[in-house]
Amino acid sequence: MAELRIRLGMVGGGEGAFIGAVHRIAARLDDRYELVAGALSASSDKAMRSAEAIGLASDRSYPDFQTMARAEAARADGIEAVAIVTPNHMHVPVAEAFLDTGIHVICDKPLTTTLEQALHLRDKVRASGLIFAVTYNYTGYPLVRHARAMVEAGELGAVRIVQVEYPQDWLAGPLETTGQKQADWRTDPARSGAGGCIGDIGTHAYQLAHFVSGMMPDQILAELTTFVPGRRVDDNVQILLRYPNGARGALWASQVAPGQNNGLRLRVFGEKGALEWSQEEPNRLIWSPLGEPPRWINRGTVAMNASGQRVNRIPAGHPEGYLEAFATIYAEVAATIMARRTGASIDPAVTFPNIEDGVAGVAMVDAALRSSAAGGVWVTLAP
Amino acid sequence: MAELRIRLGMVGGGEGAFIGAVHRIAARLDDRYELVAGALSASSDKAMRSAEAIGLASDRSYPDFQTMARAEAARADGIEAVAIVTPNHMHVPVAEAFLDTGIHVICDKPLTTTLEQALHLRDKVRASGLIFAVTYNYTGYPLVRHARAMVEAGELGAVRIVQVEYPQDWLAGPLETTGQKQADWRTDPARSGAGGCIGDIGTHAYQLAHFVSGMMPDQILAELTTFVPGRRVDDNVQILLRYPNGARGALWASQVAPGQNNGLRLRVFGEKGALEWSQEEPNRLIWSPLGEPPRWINRGTVAMNASGQRVNRIPAGHPEGYLEAFATIYAEVAATIMARRTGASIDPAVTFPNIEDGVAGVAMVDAALRSSAAGGVWVTLAP
Amino acid sequence: MAELRIRLGMVGGGEGAFIGAVHRIAARLDDRYELVAGALSASSDKAMRSAEAIGLASDRSYPDFQTMARAEAARADGIEAVAIVTPNHMHVPVAEAFLDTGIHVICDKPLTTTLEQALHLRDKVRASGLIFAVTYNYTGYPLVRHARAMVEAGELGAVRIVQVEYPQDWLAGPLETTGQKQADWRTDPARSGAGGCIGDIGTHAYQLAHFVSGMMPDQILAELTTFVPGRRVDDNVQILLRYPNGARGALWASQVAPGQNNGLRLRVFGEKGALEWSQEEPNRLIWSPLGEPPRWINRGTVAMNASGQRVNRIPAGHPEGYLEAFATIYAEVAATIMARRTGASIDPAVTFPNIEDGVAGVAMVDAALRSSAAGGVWVTLAP
Amino acid sequence: MAELRIRLGMVGGGEGAFIGAVHRIAARLDDRYELVAGALSASSDKAMRSAEAIGLASDRSYPDFQTMARAEAARADGIEAVAIVTPNHMHVPVAEAFLDTGIHVICDKPLTTTLEQALHLRDKVRASGLIFAVTYNYTGYPLVRHARAMVEAGELGAVRIVQVEYPQDWLAGPLETTGQKQADWRTDPARSGAGGCIGDIGTHAYQLAHFVSGMMPDQILAELTTFVPGRRVDDNVQILLRYPNGARGALWASQVAPGQNNGLRLRVFGEKGALEWSQEEPNRLIWSPLGEPPRWINRGTVAMNASGQRVNRIPAGHPEGYLEAFATIYAEVAATIMARRTGASIDPAVTFPNIEDGVAGVAMVDAALRSSAAGGVWVTLAP
Repeated sequence: MAELRIRLGMVGGGEGAFIGAVHRIAARLDDRYELVAGALSASSDKAMRSAEAIGLASDRSYPDFQTMARAEAARADGIEAVAIVTPNHMHVPVAEAFLDTGIHVICDKPLTTTLEQALHLRDKVRASGLIFAVTYNYTGYPLVRHARAMVEAGELGAVRIVQVEYPQDWLAGPLETTGQKQADWRTDPARSGAGGCIGDIGTHAYQLAHFVSGMMPDQILAELTTFVPGRRVDDNVQILLRYPNGARGALWASQVAPGQNNGLRLRVFGEKGALEWSQEEPNRLIWSPLGEPPRWINRGTVAMNASGQRVNRIPAGHPEGYLEAFATIYAEVAATIMARRTGASIDPAVTFPNIEDGVAGVAMVDAALRSSAAGGVWVTLAP
Repeated sequence: MAELRIRLGMVGGGEGAFIGAVHRIAARLDDRYELVAGALSASSDKAMRSAEAIGLASDRSYPDFQTMARAEAARADGIEAVAIVTPNHMHVPVAEAFLDTGIHVICDKPLTTTLEQALHLRDKVRASGLIFAVTYNYTGYPLVRHARAMVEAGELGAVRIVQVEYPQDWLAGPLETTGQKQADWRTDPARSGAGGCIGDIGTHAYQLAHFVSGMMPDQILAELTTFVPGRRVDDNVQILLRYPNGARGALWASQVAPGQNNGLRLRVFGEKGALEWSQEEPNRLIWSPLGEPPRWINRGTVAMNASGQRVNRIPAGHPEGYLEAFATIYAEVAATIMARRTGASIDPAVTFPNIEDGVAGVAMVDAALRSSAAGGVWVTLAP
Repeated sequence: MAELRIRLGMVGGGEGAFIGAVHRIAARLDDRYELVAGALSASSDKAMRSAEAIGLASDRSYPDFQTMARAEAARADGIEAVAIVTPNHMHVPVAEAFLDTGIHVICDKPLTTTLEQALHLRDKVRASGLIFAVTYNYTGYPLVRHARAMVEAGELGAVRIVQVEYPQDWLAGPLETTGQKQADWRTDPARSGAGGCIGDIGTHAYQLAHFVSGMMPDQILAELTTFVPGRRVDDNVQILLRYPNGARGALWASQVAPGQNNGLRLRVFGEKGALEWSQEEPNRLIWSPLGEPPRWINRGTVAMNASGQRVNRIPAGHPEGYLEAFATIYAEVAATIMARRTGASIDPAVTFPNIEDGVAGVAMVDAALRSSAAGGVWVTLAP
Repeated sequence: MAELRIRLGMVGGGEGAFIGAVHRIAARLDDRYELVAGALSASSDKAMRSAEAIGLASDRSYPDFQTMARAEAARADGIEAVAIVTPNHMHVPVAEAFLDTGIHVICDKPLTTTLEQALHLRDKVRASGLIFAVTYNYTGYPLVRHARAMVEAGELGAVRIVQVEYPQDWLAGPLETTGQKQADWRTDPARSGAGGCIGDIGTHAYQLAHFVSGMMPDQILAELTTFVPGRRVDDNVQILLRYPNGARGALWASQVAPGQNNGLRLRVFGEKGALEWSQEEPNRLIWSPLGEPPRWINRGTVAMNASGQRVNRIPAGHPEGYLEAFATIYAEVAATIMARRTGASIDPAVTFPNIEDGVAGVAMVDAALRSSAAGGVWVTLAP
C-alpha cells in the first residue's frame, strides 16, 4: 500500500513530549502517511523505548538524528519526509541533516532561535528545492481558509485594523521551577531562543494575522514583559503593528492570563465588513458586513466558500478541532509530495506555511526583542 | 506491528457514504486498529473500487459480507473485529454472519429496524460471549464522561429533570426526492425502519440522557410528526419521559428545524445542581451548583475529573471534536479486545455502548411509535 | 403638566413587595404617568407607611382599595387608571371596584385564580368599555415585537414547531417555609391559585409563544410535578401543544432548575426559517433563514424592523432590559388612554396584552390542571 | 413632595439630541429628581419648543444658560443641580455659570476640550465646595461595582495586565457629511476637541479601566489614526499603558469597526485570577480564579458582593441595562446632595466619577495627542 502513503520519519517526540504525539495523530488522521522511522529522543535509550511503544520497527529506530538521516537516505524504502518536533534550538541541525540527504522537512515553529539561523536555513532550503513546511497549524482550520479567501476576494474592502491575541495562563506561576518538561525548555533561552511567549505563541498569532489578512507589517513596536519573578524570558507581549497601506494592528500574547487556555483570536476590520474567529470555537466564523446584521458562517454549511470546503472533512454541527486542523497541514504537504512523486501539477489552492513563513516569524521575534530592548520604540522589520 | 493493533474489517462505507469514512478515521486516530479487510458496498464493483481507493489489499476486498466473514474467519491473520456501517436494515444479517464466525462487532446505530430483531440479536450476542459495541458516539466526549461521573458520584443529588434535544435542519425540505443518498435511505422505512427522525437522532439523544443521568424511563409519551409532504417517516419528535424515581424528562428531536446543524444538547437538573452540555461546543460543560455561580468545566483543565481525563487527548484550549469522541468509542473497544487477547483484567472505567444499549434505543423507538399511533398516550417501555 | 401625564393609582406594592416597585419604575420611565394615589397594602398601617416612603400625598393614601376607588372617582383630578399588583386572588375584587367607577385597569398576571372568575371578569370588562391591560411584560421587548412582525409577515413561512421554556431555580428548596414573602404567597393555592409554577411563569411562556407565533393551540397535554416535599403547588411543568394548523409545540417551566435565574426562551421554527430569543439576552434575536447563515438582529440597528423600532428607546449596543420592556407596556397603555382622552385615532401598531390574553392564560392553567389530574392526557382548551 | 426629590435643571438636550433624553430618564428612573428648569438648546426657539414638549413650566424654560443660572439662583425653589448635556466645548462656560451661583453640576464627558480648561475648572470646583459629577456612566453597572470591589479586596492579587477596548462602527463611513447631528459635532474639533474617537469613547474605556483596576498609568503611547478620508479627527486609537507597579495595559477604541455597536469590554488579569466584563452583556461578569474553573457572577444573585448589591434594583435574570447604569450615577449624586441638605453623614460606599476623573480623562487625551503627534512615542501623563 506504500503507494498511497508517504513514508515519514520523526525526530523528537519521545516519552513525555506533547507535540510529537500531536504530529503523529495529524499525520495519521487522513491516512496519507506511514510513520516508519524515528530518532525520538536525544537520549538513545529513551529513543528506543519510545519507538517500541509506538510500534516502530527496531531497525528503524535510531539513537540519533544524524544516523537516521544517513541510514534512511541509503534505503530504497527510506523516508520521504521527516517531522522535526524537538525543542527550538535543534531545528536547524536536524533540518540540515535531512535536507542534505534530499528528504523533505516538516518542522515545528518557531523556525529557529535567531534570525541569522533562519536566513541561513532559508538559503539552504531554497538551494535544495525540497519541500519545507513549518507547522503554523492554526492555518489549517477550514474557517481560517474561508476567512483568508474572503479577504483575498475583497469582500472586506481595504483592511483597516487587525486585532489578534493569544492569551494562556499555564505560566502564571513559576512552573519551570517544578521540573515540568514543557515549561522547562520553553523558558530556557538556550533551547527556546531569547523570546519566550513571543516565540512560543506570539509567532502563531502573527502568522495567523498574516495568513488571513494577506498583509505584512513593515514596522512594529513591542513591550515584552516578564511578570513571574526569576523567569528568564518574556511571559507577556503587547505589540503595535503598522502596515504599508496605512492599516494598524495590535497583537497581545500572554502566558500569565488566568482563565485563558489557548485563546488565539483574530479580528480583521475592513472598509466593508469584519471577520472574527476564535480558535477555541473554531467551527464558527463571525462575518459582519457593514450595515447588515452579523452572521455566523458555520463550518461545513453551504455558507462556507470553496477554500473552506476544500479542507473540510465532516458535515456542519459535527465539530472539528485542533487535531483536524493540524492534520490539514500534513494533508497539504502530502498532496505536494505526491505531486512531486508523479510529476503531476498541483492544485493551486494547496497551501501550507513554508520556509518564508518560518523566517517571517523569526524576523518578528527579532524585531520585537530589539524594540523592547530599546524601551518600546518603533522598529523596521528585517527584510 | 500487528501486536499493537487490532485487525479490523468493515462492511459498508463505500463511495458516497458518510459514516464509513468517519469510522475509519475513528479507528485510525489512536493507532489501535489496522483496517485490513472490507466488503464496502452491496454492489461488488463498487466494493472493489472503494477498497482500492483506501488501500485495502485486493485479496481482502470482498464482494459481499458473507464471503468476507467466511474468508476472514479462515485466515490465521483474519480480522478480529468488524465495523458495520450499512443502512440499518442490514445490521442484523451482517452482525450475525460475523458473530457466527467468532468475530467481535462494532455496529452503527440504531441497532435494528424492529424490536423483535433487536431482542433476537441480543440473545445471540449474549450466547456468543463476543464483544458487541454500538456506536452511540456522543458518549465518547470527555466532558460527557465527566458529567456522567458527577451524577454517579451524587454531586447533583437526586436527578429531577432531564431535558435533551437534538435538532437538525437538513430535512426541512423534501431532500429525499433529489436522490441525495443519505436522505434517500434514511427516509425509507424499508431500510431505516419505521422510525425516521426518532431512530436516526432521537436514539442518540435518548442514549446520551441515559448515559449521563444513569436513569432509564419506564413510561414515555410521544408525538411523532411528519411535516414535509410526501415523507414516509417522522421528521419531528416530542417525547415526555417518566422515570421510576419520579424524575421527569423531555426529549425533542427534529430534522426540520432551520438553523440547527447537529444541535444535540443535554441538561440534567438535580436537587443540588445542574449540568448542561452541547455537542456543538463540546469542550465546555456548564456546572451550576445550587446557590453558587455557574462555572464551566473546560476539557483538559485540572477541573476535569478522572473519568474525563482518562479519555482526554490534548490540553485545554485545543478543541477536540466529533472525530475524537468517535475515536474514543473505538479506543474503548480496543482496550477491551486487547484485554481479551492477553487475558489481562480490564480497567473497570472502560465503557462503551453495548448490545443492551442498542436494544434500549430500539425499545424506545418501538414505544414511541406505539404511543404516537395511539394518539399520544403514555406507554410502558418494553423490558 | 397633568395634560402630558396620566394620573395613576396603585393597589398593592407596599413594603417588601417586588413587583410594585417595578410597576412604578415602568410607569415613570417614559414620563407618561404621574402616580398620585394608592392603597399599597392590605394592612392600612403599612399602606400609609409605604405611601409616605414613596411620596404620595397623605390624603390620597388609602387604607383599602374600596375607599380608594370611591374617593378617586369622586375627585375632579382623580386617577384615570389603576395598577393592580396584589397577590393573584385579589385581582378580581380590586379590578371590579375600579371598573365599577369607570377607571382603566392595568393588572398583573395571571388574571385570576380560576377560569370561572376570568370569564366573569372578561364579561365585565367588555361591558365597561374600559381599557384593561394585563402585564405580560415580556411582550414589551423591541425584539419580541420584531419577531412577531416577522412571523406575521410570513418571513418564516408556515410555523411548524414552537419550543418555549421558562426555567428558574429560586424554589429548588422549600423557601416558603422560611417566611420569604414571595415564596409564601406564590405557593399558597388560596392566594396564588391551584397552579404554582404553571400560573406564575408558565403563563408568561405561553403568552410569549402566542404573541410571537400568532397561533393558539387547541389541545394540550401537561405533566405538573411537585418536586419539593411539602409544597402545595406544582414546581415543574412540561406541556405538549397541538395547534390547529398541525404545528407542534412544547413548553417547559420550572422553579427547581439550578443555575436558571429567569430563563424565558422562545424558538419558533417555520418552513422558511427560525427565530430564537432569550429574555436574559434580550438585545439580540437570532434569525436563521433556511439554507443561509444564521444572523443576529441587534436591537437598535437598522436591521430591526418598524415594529421593533417603534418601541425602541436607545441606540444599538446600549442594552435595554426588563424595566424598559415593562415600561413599554405602560407606554402602550398610555398611548391608548391619551387617544381616548382626546378622541384621536390610535396608531394601529399600538398593542398590549389585554383581557382576552388574560383569559387565555387562565384557560391554559385550567386545561393543564385538568390534563395532569387525569394522568397526562390530551385536553381541549376551553374557548 | 419636593423634600423627597432634588430640583434639577438641564442645559442642552433639546430636540434631536440623544444624550439629553438619556439623562432625563436616568434622573427619573429612581424618582430622586424632579426636572423643573432648562435651557435646552442654543437656539432659543428650539429651547422653548423642546421644553414644552417635555412639560417644563414656561417660566422655567430659558433661552440661554446664563439667564437660567441667574434666575434659578434667585428663586427660593430654584434648582439644586444642573445637568450639562451640550457639546463638549460648552461644558466649561456652562459649568462655571452654575458653579458661580452655588448650584451642583452633573456634566457629560469628556470634561473639556483642552487640558488647560480642565485644570482651570478643577480649581474652580475645588474652591466652590460644590458637587461635580462627570457622567462616566459605565461605572454605574452593578457588576462593574462588584469587579472594582474584588480588585480592591485583593481577590485578584497584584494586577498585571489590563486589556480594555471600545469598538463601534457608526463612523465607518463619512457620516458627518450627511448632516447627521451626532456625527457632525463629534467630528468637529471646534466643538468636540482635538480628539475624536479618543475623546468620545476612549475616555470611557480609560475611566472604566481605572475605576475597576484602581490603577492609573504613568506613561502611555498612542497611535491615533483617521481612516475615513476627509475626517478632521481620529477614528481609531491604539494605546499602550505602563503602570507604576509594572503592570501593562492596552486600550483600543474605534469608530470604524464594522459589526461593533458599543463594544466596551474590560479584562483585568492579576496574579490570582482575572475578570472579564462586556458592556453589551452587562448582567454577567466572568471571574476566573487561577487554577479553577471560570464562573460567571450573574447580577442580582447571591454571588454578587455588597458593592454590587448596593446599586442593584431587580432580581437576577431580569436584565438591567444602559439606562439603569446611567441612573445609578444620578442616584449616587442624589444621595450625596441629600446628605448635604440634611447634614447627614454619607455612606462611604457612595461613589461617582468626579472632577478629578474628568481631569484624568482629558489628561489622557492630551497625552495621547502628544504621543501620536510625535510619531508614537512614550509620554508621561500630566499630573
